[in-house]
Amino acid sequence: MKVLEERIIKDGQLLGETILKVDSFLTHQVDYQLMKDIGRVFAAKYRHEGITKIVTIEASGIAPALYVAEALDLPMVFAKKSKNITMTEDILTAQVYSFTKQVTSQVSIAQKFLKASDKVLIIDDFLANGQAAKGLIEMIEQAGAQVAGVGIVIEKSFQSGRQLLEEMGVPVTSLARLGRCENGEIKFLEADA
Amino acid sequence: MKVLEERIIKDGQLLGETILKVDSFLTHQVDYQLMKDIGRVFAAKYRHEGITKIVTIEASGIAPALYVAEALDLPMVFAKKSKNITMTEDILTAQVYSFTKQVTSQVSIAQKFLKASDKVLIIDDFLANGQAAKGLIEMIEQAGAQVAGVGIVIEKSFQSGRQLLEEMGVPVTSLARLGRCENGEIKFLEADA
Repeated sequence: MKVLEERIIKDGQLLGETILKVDSFLTHQVDYQLMKDIGRVFAAKYRHEGITKIVTIEASGIAPALYVAEALDLPMVFAKKSKNITMTEDILTAQVYSFTKQVTSQVSIAQKFLKASDKVLIIDDFLANGQAAKGLIEMIEQAGAQVAGVGIVIEKSFQSGRQLLEEMGVPVTSLARLGRCENGEIKFLEADA
Repeated sequence: MKVLEERIIKDGQLLGETILKVDSFLTHQVDYQLMKDIGRVFAAKYRHEGITKIVTIEASGIAPALYVAEALDLPMVFAKKSKNITMTEDILTAQVYSFTKQVTSQVSIAQKFLKASDKVLIIDDFLANGQAAKGLIEMIEQAGAQVAGVGIVIEKSFQSGRQLLEEMGVPVTSLARLGRCENGEIKFLEADA
């Protein structure tokens, strides 16, 4: 997605060779227009796949996922990173290991929001090692539902997440694919959309 | 907001007399169309106030805040509940006490996203004791910016949040104002919009 790559070049900040900071339009401050454009691109790709629900994980996945939901006229569900006193019913859970924080945390979705008849499109802001997406896939499969694909705003193509998800049989659509960035230069591989 | 009150009656669940669960359209599964309608109502109320930025707090505030941002064509910033390795610059922080979880947690916003010239509209999903909104106001004031108002999707009018914010000199606009719910019946006070 050319406009996304241009925005990353313009406003993204590299921290070392592996961390890309995009807090001015995606992960902290959010540019709704870019999110809306992103939503439309994913929707165009998945419009004829019979998707019934969009699933993401709080918090930075919510904005792009919401606009995918709008473009496909579907409900969006965001997985929770912490338990809440109002989550009293049956929940689906998965353990997600964070390589950057080096901790395993539990994520959860209320079971009632995923049915065996659902065909789910997962949306997330970043794909690095694929642990968050893997956790979402596990929960969706616990519910007996089908995962149609994973849509990623920015993939770190030098990490193993894409391979992990593809080995699970889940296709990945990434709008920007970041190569290893040497000498402070942001490099992209060819994107999926 | 009549359509919101009707949706709360239809899909909200009371847990005891003080907890309202709206996880099927706001806090876990999200109805984008309702969020979009909510965004337009807040935007209509604040369109001529010279707002320059929408601020909310992760995670349930993001969806309504994003559509307010769209309706007013403004950037949206969500305050973070936990530190992130990419938050390397100067940050504004506030301590937020949660009465339900009985813990104090720190919320933060990167300082670069709030300028002294900003006029901010705060959006959040719930107002109960007002501690989250108070924390956001404190951070915005640390930046020297002005808070034009707080827009709330569902106010628990039997708790002290609204009074707290009004005593801080900040006007509150709540789209649904929940009265004390006895015998499992949801009661509303007159809403602000």
